Amino acid sequence: MTTRLTTKIGSVDGDDIFVRGHNLLDVLDRYDFTEILYLVLVGGLPDKNAKRMMNILLVSAVDHGMTPGAVAARLTLLGAPEGLQAALGAGLLGAGSRYVGAIELAATLLGKTIAERSDWAPDRFEEAAKRIVTDHRARKKSIPGFGHPFHKSIDPRTARMLDVARECGFFSKHCMLAMALSAQASDVFGRPLPLNAQGAKAGIVLDMGLTPAFAKAVTLVGRCGGLLAHLLEEQEQPMSGAIWELIRKASEPEKD
Amino acid sequence: MTTRLTTKIGSVDGDDIFVRGHNLLDVLDRYDFTEILYLVLVGGLPDKNAKRMMNILLVSAVDHGMTPGAVAARLTLLGAPEGLQAALGAGLLGAGSRYVGAIELAATLLGKTIAERSDWAPDRFEEAAKRIVTDHRARKKSIPGFGHPFHKSIDPRTARMLDVARECGFFSKHCMLAMALSAQASDVFGRPLPLNAQGAKAGIVLDMGLTPAFAKAVTLVGRCGGLLAHLLEEQEQPMSGAIWELIRKASEPEKD
Amino acid sequence: MTTRLTTKIGSVDGDDIFVRGHNLLDVLDRYDFTEILYLVLVGGLPDKNAKRMMNILLVSAVDHGMTPGAVAARLTLLGAPEGLQAALGAGLLGAGSRYVGAIELAATLLGKTIAERSDWAPDRFEEAAKRIVTDHRARKKSIPGFGHPFHKSIDPRTARMLDVARECGFFSKHCMLAMALSAQASDVFGRPLPLNAQGAKAGIVLDMGLTPAFAKAVTLVGRCGGLLAHLLEEQEQPMSGAIWELIRKASEPEKD
Amino acid sequence: MTTRLTTKIGSVDGDDIFVRGHNLLDVLDRYDFTEILYLVLVGGLPDKNAKRMMNILLVSAVDHGMTPGAVAARLTLLGAPEGLQAALGAGLLGAGSRYVGAIELAATLLGKTIAERSDWAPDRFEEAAKRIVTDHRARKKSIPGFGHPFHKSIDPRTARMLDVARECGFFSKHCMLAMALSAQASDVFGRPLPLNAQGAKAGIVLDMGLTPAFAKAVTLVGRCGGLLAHLLEEQEQPMSGAIWELIRKASEPEKD
Repeated sequence: MTTRLTTKIGSVDGDDIFVRGHNLLDVLDRYDFTEILYLVLVGGLPDKNAKRMMNILLVSAVDHGMTPGAVAARLTLLGAPEGLQAALGAGLLGAGSRYVGAIELAATLLGKTIAERSDWAPDRFEEAAKRIVTDHRARKKSIPGFGHPFHKSIDPRTARMLDVARECGFFSKHCMLAMALSAQASDVFGRPLPLNAQGAKAGIVLDMGLTPAFAKAVTLVGRCGGLLAHLLEEQEQPMSGAIWELIRKASEPEKD
Repeated sequence: MTTRLTTKIGSVDGDDIFVRGHNLLDVLDRYDFTEILYLVLVGGLPDKNAKRMMNILLVSAVDHGMTPGAVAARLTLLGAPEGLQAALGAGLLGAGSRYVGAIELAATLLGKTIAERSDWAPDRFEEAAKRIVTDHRARKKSIPGFGHPFHKSIDPRTARMLDVARECGFFSKHCMLAMALSAQASDVFGRPLPLNAQGAKAGIVLDMGLTPAFAKAVTLVGRCGGLLAHLLEEQEQPMSGAIWELIRKASEPEKD
Repeated sequence: MTTRLTTKIGSVDGDDIFVRGHNLLDVLDRYDFTEILYLVLVGGLPDKNAKRMMNILLVSAVDHGMTPGAVAARLTLLGAPEGLQAALGAGLLGAGSRYVGAIELAATLLGKTIAERSDWAPDRFEEAAKRIVTDHRARKKSIPGFGHPFHKSIDPRTARMLDVARECGFFSKHCMLAMALSAQASDVFGRPLPLNAQGAKAGIVLDMGLTPAFAKAVTLVGRCGGLLAHLLEEQEQPMSGAIWELIRKASEPEKD
Repeated sequence: MTTRLTTKIGSVDGDDIFVRGHNLLDVLDRYDFTEILYLVLVGGLPDKNAKRMMNILLVSAVDHGMTPGAVAARLTLLGAPEGLQAALGAGLLGAGSRYVGAIELAATLLGKTIAERSDWAPDRFEEAAKRIVTDHRARKKSIPGFGHPFHKSIDPRTARMLDVARECGFFSKHCMLAMALSAQASDVFGRPLPLNAQGAKAGIVLDMGLTPAFAKAVTLVGRCGGLLAHLLEEQEQPMSGAIWELIRKASEPEKD
């Protein structure tokens, strides 16, 4: 008996290529990239609302200026100009538990909290949120999806995305819990701790019936676009040499 | 005087995020991901034809079954399940000069050949193609964008993509040269060496007025989608353990 | 006022290169690589015992046959033969919380347990070990550093490394706790759960007065050697094509 | 018939681990890391001279201060503090054709030139060197292994390494060609173009009877040590936040 490796993602059969069971030739010019991304990640095509929401998840992740990832990507291209994919890889490797990857942690927190009980009512959200905030505070841990290094008051993308989520029917338990968390956190810490874009997207993705890992995957695809834009610009108008010089000038060996 | 690092890709200004000069809030729900990808990579929004073509470039790159990259990504997740981005990174790192990355080499070859002279006429394509084929044969090098490990006769995506390119006005010099190359190569080598999907896309991208690096960037974004689909499936239904066992069973230390 | 970036690791001053304050010219032919690795990672040169132990930590990590990392590295080289460093990178990215990277988790567990109280006596180790085992069992989590996919009874490297640790004066609290954990785990689970090489090295590194991160760093340097050996062999005698074929043959699209 | 995957690097057989045919238990405390690295990469143990030279190749590669790789590694750790191996990976990915990886290109150039003819005499080196310099100048390409961004006159490591190479019997044709290249390059370009450390090591490795890929592999292992030292320091005394702030302050969106 031999081990069989079965995948639903895709396959090649002679001259035919299949993606999630669809012949690539049948979908190539019929569905757009957002739909195919949803298809390949989720397993079925999105309806109109899911597609609209998916687009926003992707577009909002594309770029955030000169992030640590964009800088790491550019510095990698400086040393290995022959490998665009490796510079992209270097830029993605920092999408871990902080910044970009926080969306997965936020979604996991929201999902776990909601999954613990089935009888949610508005007052329960407050109670659950208070418990989470108090618990994180006691352990001196930040709550993923809240607060932002630049946007002290509110992340401009958050409000807009939640509005669209409402229109599309994706504002439900998880989004409500996310908002309750923000209110409680600001209350407990005595300063605004707004729901940031990652936290809002985490709630929306779960209210779409999808998973924390999906939330992170979509964010990574979006961010690839921005990182590659930085890299194509770097090829035409390099700035990595100037970045390196800036750092060298600011560096000095520490005297013991 | 201090060094200034200027980028056109994106920036953050207080509560506002800008992508290529557009406030993210203005474009978030207005343009779709394909348009924003084009915007961020190229600098302006695509027209209807460029958008249609761009979609096809992305969709056709999404997946090709259990590629070396998909396997590398899955094996990486086996050892580091906590970092989706690192497994994605491992899957992308093999998108070099062979397979996925061949599109950049093919586009560079087509672009350089066309750029060398301005007075192209149909018979010149044949002549140029013959020269390139003969030269590669003499140096025992394969011509990037031609032939395929699976598709011996014709890559099913090629014909379709060229048809759409014709409809969209993106079938011009570079595509013609690519087709001439295929004809000459098959003639010289005495067996079909069809233009593959990478080669066709290389010609199309150049006939869209874009660059080899853009061709590769678009391919990488598309492939990210497929790799992440493999990884989300791997999280739910792992097969990397079975892959490893398969390899272990087939392995044995070489006796000197 | 400008930000200063100060590092003790190394610097360049005109024609002089410094590593941890030593002029590279003074150490280049005087200390061996193991000593310089210790110097750069820890801050000072190792004494005779620390050097002997450090060597064993490195050598024991070099290779473990056709690991998932070695396979991922080879498959990456298949697609990007031009970038040895990227294939090495792909092979390292799976050194996460399972396999190779488990040493850091094991060391963190041992370190935290020991740090919690200062009055350790032999009977306390048993008690602490029992508590940890019971706790992990209740949470259905495996204990990092114990058990092994191949070595059911005992990891051959473990006993030897602990012997040397004893000779060198590095068998103390953390190693004792590790051994107590193994005994308790085998007892509670009713089958041998031997201290594996990662677990033993975790205890030894802490008893050398060093950190979990150091344990992981040393393991990564050692493993780089093995991964690069696989890659140089792959360049001369490729097997990645055969690996891919093996996987393709065993793959089939899952029928819904 | 089944495909067999045979490797000489290492294997696991029940409780025994083999590296290049040696039982790990037999070599663990007998040979040092430098010897085992040589064994695993080359296939046999080094003699005294090869070991001395190998040590110098490794030690000289460890660190060069705040290189682009060290910065990329630190910035990656900022976003993904949970994955030391991914930050190391990001730091390695830039070891391409420029900086660190130049050693492979230099060795390839020297090796190819020497291989082309068997009847080398001192005056031939000058002639061959002149031809290479003239050819590179005409194509406006830099010669890998010559010149350095910081060290305008001479790389301090070069002279010392060549002295040791002479003592060890590894100063032969390839080193002579490298020195002739430096002399000719300085002559043709009218300014000092000293043989740098990468160029010298390239010549030495070939005169040890080893390959360009080996030269690069050894450099990568050495550099891993330095990158990990930067990362352990970053964990204790982070500077990546300050680096990011420095870049953000110097950044501004480009006005069209």
